[in-house]
Amino acid sequence: MTVTNSSGSGNIRATLKEIYNKLKEEMLNDPAFDFNEYSRQWIDRMVDYNVLGGKCNRVLSVIDSYNIIKGVDVPSKEDMYLACTLGWCIEWIQAFYIMLDDIMDNSQTRRGQPCWFRVPQVGLIAINDGILLRSHVSRILQRLFKGKPYCNYLTNLFTESECKAASGQLLDLIITHEGKKDLTKYDMTIYRRIVQHKTAYNSFYLPVACALLLAGENLDNFCKAKNILVEMGTYFQVQDDYLDCFGDPELTGKVGTDIEEYKCSWLVVQALEHADENQRSILFENYGKSNPACVSKVKDLYKKLNLQNLFHEYERESYGKLIADIETQPNEAIRNVLMSFLHKIYKRNK
Amino acid sequence: MTVTNSSGSGNIRATLKEIYNKLKEEMLNDPAFDFNEYSRQWIDRMVDYNVLGGKCNRVLSVIDSYNIIKGVDVPSKEDMYLACTLGWCIEWIQAFYIMLDDIMDNSQTRRGQPCWFRVPQVGLIAINDGILLRSHVSRILQRLFKGKPYCNYLTNLFTESECKAASGQLLDLIITHEGKKDLTKYDMTIYRRIVQHKTAYNSFYLPVACALLLAGENLDNFCKAKNILVEMGTYFQVQDDYLDCFGDPELTGKVGTDIEEYKCSWLVVQALEHADENQRSILFENYGKSNPACVSKVKDLYKKLNLQNLFHEYERESYGKLIADIETQPNEAIRNVLMSFLHKIYKRNK
Repeated sequence: MTVTNSSGSGNIRATLKEIYNKLKEEMLNDPAFDFNEYSRQWIDRMVDYNVLGGKCNRVLSVIDSYNIIKGVDVPSKEDMYLACTLGWCIEWIQAFYIMLDDIMDNSQTRRGQPCWFRVPQVGLIAINDGILLRSHVSRILQRLFKGKPYCNYLTNLFTESECKAASGQLLDLIITHEGKKDLTKYDMTIYRRIVQHKTAYNSFYLPVACALLLAGENLDNFCKAKNILVEMGTYFQVQDDYLDCFGDPELTGKVGTDIEEYKCSWLVVQALEHADENQRSILFENYGKSNPACVSKVKDLYKKLNLQNLFHEYERESYGKLIADIETQPNEAIRNVLMSFLHKIYKRNK
Repeated sequence: MTVTNSSGSGNIRATLKEIYNKLKEEMLNDPAFDFNEYSRQWIDRMVDYNVLGGKCNRVLSVIDSYNIIKGVDVPSKEDMYLACTLGWCIEWIQAFYIMLDDIMDNSQTRRGQPCWFRVPQVGLIAINDGILLRSHVSRILQRLFKGKPYCNYLTNLFTESECKAASGQLLDLIITHEGKKDLTKYDMTIYRRIVQHKTAYNSFYLPVACALLLAGENLDNFCKAKNILVEMGTYFQVQDDYLDCFGDPELTGKVGTDIEEYKCSWLVVQALEHADENQRSILFENYGKSNPACVSKVKDLYKKLNLQNLFHEYERESYGKLIADIETQPNEAIRNVLMSFLHKIYKRNK
């Protein structure tokens, strides 16, 4: 999700892959799972398919944040191993969410390949596969960080983040269901709550919080930084919603389907807020239909309502507010982490 | 699953319900979930529907085991609260497994009511609901047992048990898929592995291990007791498979469907081991079909192969071996716990 400085380095990519392989090996041979040959082959393929497809940005976020906080360019081998492992834990958890979300949303493809549950012979076994990935993260945390002073804080952090994600997903599922009967159920309060819980907390706060704990910091001293990261994650998701409709598929690498899929998107919420009676009828009649003529009518309305300008205004305002908030942070290292995150996403077009 | 002494007492039932309500309230108001009014209503109903339907035997098992280990009839109010909460944690986890298993098995009913995912408007939201239940257990463990000397052992125990259950479920799903192409994939090695992981560990070992930790014991000293409990759980599942076909529905409260559903049951594994070529063909042709004539042919074959006698022989042998193993246990309290479990299930007909 977040793009980081380290991502260009071939060296770090090799380290990431090496540690990934080690974590997978540990899973395959973990006596707690006690896999037999049948299941070992299954797991090997399943983990590669679901965890490796992403851009590893969460792993890189943990490493970069850790380096900034500690003020080093290259961490010690042990610190690198711990930061990288924590990053992979976030990626594994993310894979778990994605696998189950795709089933719940009845999705077709993910990261350019069929969703795991659509692979022949997988089907709903994918639900259990997700749980296996999740359990392995608990095992890693318990094994690797046992005895470290921050071990329990780390476990609590992952649990809290799982609670947030599942609670956001529940709200999303309920509201999409309600929205299909009455589009006006979509509003900015609901939208922000879903985004903060489902995306912002896990993709923005979690990597930084992991880096802070690893660096020996007390998370209670970073409540405001947490709010800033969650706000940044919200801004990131609004960009995503905007690019889904108005982005260049050549750059984003995907063709948006939020309108067809009846998503509670920033754009539809804004449209509902700004439309007159007549325009609202157009939305009610055409939103969530896969017919291209309906999709066009919705897009035309978005343009007529000047949602593009509205988005650029929101972008400017958010940026200004985030910068101002970041500047009030007393800790220089955390200011640098936050700035580095913000500059990677500001005005992104992919 | 296991029936316990306390189950008759109205008083204890009231305490159980009171603590259940408290745990549910805590979930509804937990800032980690940060539910809004929509989701709070959903969760309230979902938890009652899925957690309350069972017989609470796991809660009662923890309490009874704890009392035997501590040598008390009535534990202190605090100990009772902790034992009961741990028991509920096992029940919540069990509800999580059941909700997801029912989706993966495409089941219709559970505990006399439609499976949760078949309730109108629920559908695959049930997957996320299961995860929410699971997350709440982590929150309970982290909050209530924080600072207790056995806190980390408890967390590890629940993780390990989740790994076992998911690994057993994976094997079950893969083998049932393979078995549909080639019934001879079902054998006693696979059968025992599935049962030990999916049922025995969670329903028999976990409640006793919780009670031991709560009583200040070190689980490393109870490895043999663990094996005995897992063996007892296996025996319990064999009984279940036997009763599915030969039990009295008036007593068991359900009509068996293992043959129709192509289950890797103890009976079909025994039949495959004892059948001649001709009898194997009958199995291949009729197993896993919902046509009552096919089911009858399978049942007739089971009778012809004397599986009823074979089961009674197995039952006698298992009982003898379990008793012998229990008698080698040096700790009197654990002997009593194991004996109490065994006597509750020996020769059960429901």
